[in-house]
Amino acid sequence: MDKPALLVRAPSNQCHDTGIPKVACRLALLLITILLFASAPSLLFQPLTISLTHNDPWEGLAAHCKDAQPIHTAEFLERQRQLAHALHALNGSTYVAEPGASALFFGNISDASWHLSERPLLLLISPLVDQGEVSARVTILTPTFEEDRAKLLNIPGVDVSYVAWHEDEDPYTIAVKALPTSSRGPIYVDGMTRHFIVDGFEKAAPGLSVLLAPAAITSLRERKSPTEITLLKCANEAQMRIGMRESQVIQMVDEAVGGCWFDREMGVGAFRGCVAWCVVPSRSDSRTEENAALPHGTGTDRVLGRSDFILIDTGGVLFGYHTWADRSNSRRARYLKTTLRIWWDVHAAQTAAMRVARAGVITAEVDKAARAELTRRGLSPYFTHRLGHGIGLEDHEAPYLRGGSDIVINSGHTFSNEPGVYIKGKVGIRLEDCFYINDGGAAVYLTEDVGAQARDPLHP
Amino acid sequence: MDKPALLVRAPSNQCHDTGIPKVACRLALLLITILLFASAPSLLFQPLTISLTHNDPWEGLAAHCKDAQPIHTAEFLERQRQLAHALHALNGSTYVAEPGASALFFGNISDASWHLSERPLLLLISPLVDQGEVSARVTILTPTFEEDRAKLLNIPGVDVSYVAWHEDEDPYTIAVKALPTSSRGPIYVDGMTRHFIVDGFEKAAPGLSVLLAPAAITSLRERKSPTEITLLKCANEAQMRIGMRESQVIQMVDEAVGGCWFDREMGVGAFRGCVAWCVVPSRSDSRTEENAALPHGTGTDRVLGRSDFILIDTGGVLFGYHTWADRSNSRRARYLKTTLRIWWDVHAAQTAAMRVARAGVITAEVDKAARAELTRRGLSPYFTHRLGHGIGLEDHEAPYLRGGSDIVINSGHTFSNEPGVYIKGKVGIRLEDCFYINDGGAAVYLTEDVGAQARDPLHP
Repeated sequence: MDKPALLVRAPSNQCHDTGIPKVACRLALLLITILLFASAPSLLFQPLTISLTHNDPWEGLAAHCKDAQPIHTAEFLERQRQLAHALHALNGSTYVAEPGASALFFGNISDASWHLSERPLLLLISPLVDQGEVSARVTILTPTFEEDRAKLLNIPGVDVSYVAWHEDEDPYTIAVKALPTSSRGPIYVDGMTRHFIVDGFEKAAPGLSVLLAPAAITSLRERKSPTEITLLKCANEAQMRIGMRESQVIQMVDEAVGGCWFDREMGVGAFRGCVAWCVVPSRSDSRTEENAALPHGTGTDRVLGRSDFILIDTGGVLFGYHTWADRSNSRRARYLKTTLRIWWDVHAAQTAAMRVARAGVITAEVDKAARAELTRRGLSPYFTHRLGHGIGLEDHEAPYLRGGSDIVINSGHTFSNEPGVYIKGKVGIRLEDCFYINDGGAAVYLTEDVGAQARDPLHP
Repeated sequence: MDKPALLVRAPSNQCHDTGIPKVACRLALLLITILLFASAPSLLFQPLTISLTHNDPWEGLAAHCKDAQPIHTAEFLERQRQLAHALHALNGSTYVAEPGASALFFGNISDASWHLSERPLLLLISPLVDQGEVSARVTILTPTFEEDRAKLLNIPGVDVSYVAWHEDEDPYTIAVKALPTSSRGPIYVDGMTRHFIVDGFEKAAPGLSVLLAPAAITSLRERKSPTEITLLKCANEAQMRIGMRESQVIQMVDEAVGGCWFDREMGVGAFRGCVAWCVVPSRSDSRTEENAALPHGTGTDRVLGRSDFILIDTGGVLFGYHTWADRSNSRRARYLKTTLRIWWDVHAAQTAAMRVARAGVITAEVDKAARAELTRRGLSPYFTHRLGHGIGLEDHEAPYLRGGSDIVINSGHTFSNEPGVYIKGKVGIRLEDCFYINDGGAAVYLTEDVGAQARDPLHP
């Protein structure tokens, strides 16, 4: 298509503006960021709003995850059992987490189901030993006046109790008193815990040390179970269908504006445990100060040129499990030769990383493999960030694929593989695909069944 | 009016659904929660949606805060100067805060302007001493690949520098190296800092202690300046105009449904530094398990009776400064005598607290005064939470009006005064108004110019 490109200005509250009822809103989420760079002069422009309100082009996608199930109680119990064993081996008295990814993993308490406030509501899991058998005791520390509401949380566990603190009491003193008396070992806290809570425990129990949870604990969440891999695969495949292969976004924009360029945020919905989010990329209005090459940008309204290259960055959540994928691509064949070459360089770096990634390898080695590929091509100064991150109940989580990290890759680990080249004021290219380490120790794209890595810039 | 009450069901995304352009959306925010209790049989109901989309009944309210100004650079510099002096007196090497209320106070970095991620971006403020003069050095620790974006933050300061860490480096080691060499005293961290960051500093600087910021530091933010009091007064007055005295909410609902009952969330907008939020209160569908009396509820669609009493809980933000106000009231005279009596009991408790609150008094004493009033009336078991909280850049912040607290009230302190009585399954009443301590040490309602405390249940 050679029609001139159009400027699309979506209102800033586009994400919240769909008005699609839940029942109809089949598709969870769409995050789209567009980074622009290059080249040919902007041609013809007019304001336009893209809205998902009027119909539901994502209807067909819901079917893809229709059989997905949230984590079953039995799996929660197994996680708690493993945590209790890890704590027992560490001689730890308890594990503490605030509502968030770790409390969601071990106790089904997300920061959406219980918002953080100045009043601590905490998940505590302690090991109990009876005739050599180690089991998990789950304690919820709650403000007394919120106890009824806390009991509405659906906390899995064989042995779950609620310990309440009155407004005129010290919550941490109450919590420490409720710990099993058998162990006075360290209290291990989740890394996301706010420091005033850690400080509270330190002051309430001067005899106990309060330590950051070590790898023996954090690895329980880092290595994904088959159920989790299934959810992650489904979320990633659905996303690929939305944003990538079938290019419904681009198609819709094509239909809407007669071109292939759009900007700012689009689409949001919620259905069957899926939620969506939006991020807006950064670009300046000036060619000489092109923000397109900032890896994490926020949007402006600069008019797009017909030969602009775009970076689409999408993500979503299925039953708490995250997905990410980015594609730099063009719908036209007129991009600059240099741009095309860089695209293939980034592609090669992504491929090189995938060849190295497997169980037993140090995470830093995978980053190094991708970086070496770009170094050979003179581009490593422009690969300004780590290669990738873990992905699961957080969109970015440990372990990370980065230099300086000495974590050993293991089966069940999940990673993004996202090399990028950002030449300030000129060009920004990133390719991102997520993979996991299977039981055989091999790296496999989570989207292997729907095409995985991009084929070329015209077929992203 | 004797028309039957109607059931109002607003869609769950009502808050995001206004579609009001910024320019027209004159009034920042409206948070409305309605708790129901009592009594007379439900009568006539039909589904109905209230929307703020179609016109702007809040238009007139914008004028109220039209002269409000955000915090000026000079005030930021004064805050930094005071912090530097406090650190110098403590022999502290630096103060550390993540984006959030404290970083907003000292360095204009909110968690909206920079979202928290696993990559630390930190505000560090260190005391510099030159010929006996103490000044503040502001350092922003940023990921290298995000440095350009970090520099777009509008950080006030005479001496502001950026220290960047590469993905393969330890951020905390880089941060510690950048500290002034003159002091190796403790690093003081804001209480909201996530523990993995504190742990990072502890490991990077084994010789330095990393401590929770003490009162000499936290009090700088707790005691409000005249500019802050002006913003807080304006926000509270505007809110009183929206939700309370002029009862535009109730009036609009009256007009819309011919009754005075509505449910779930309403209204959101953004204008001139104002933002709005919504909270939905909790009620069950069962008379015998009435969630109306849960202090922090979330909504259901139980049908309301014509003589139901309602609790309206509103809040807003003006240039980062928060406001809260709750009213339990009825638009009809048919409520139960018991309910009426409790309303006056809660009113008396609020009045009693106000009589005691002044500079030099321990915060616990104010809570005690309100509680004593309810104890005399046999209601203290149902006053299940503290009397109040500080309010400013956080909606709840230190100091708190609660038993067990030994903080001395001082000029510039701001508090909510919110006694409540919650009898499970029967009734919940709360009255909330915010006040400040003036330079003379007296407690003054932030809404003193627009009526302050509720007059009676029919004129809330």
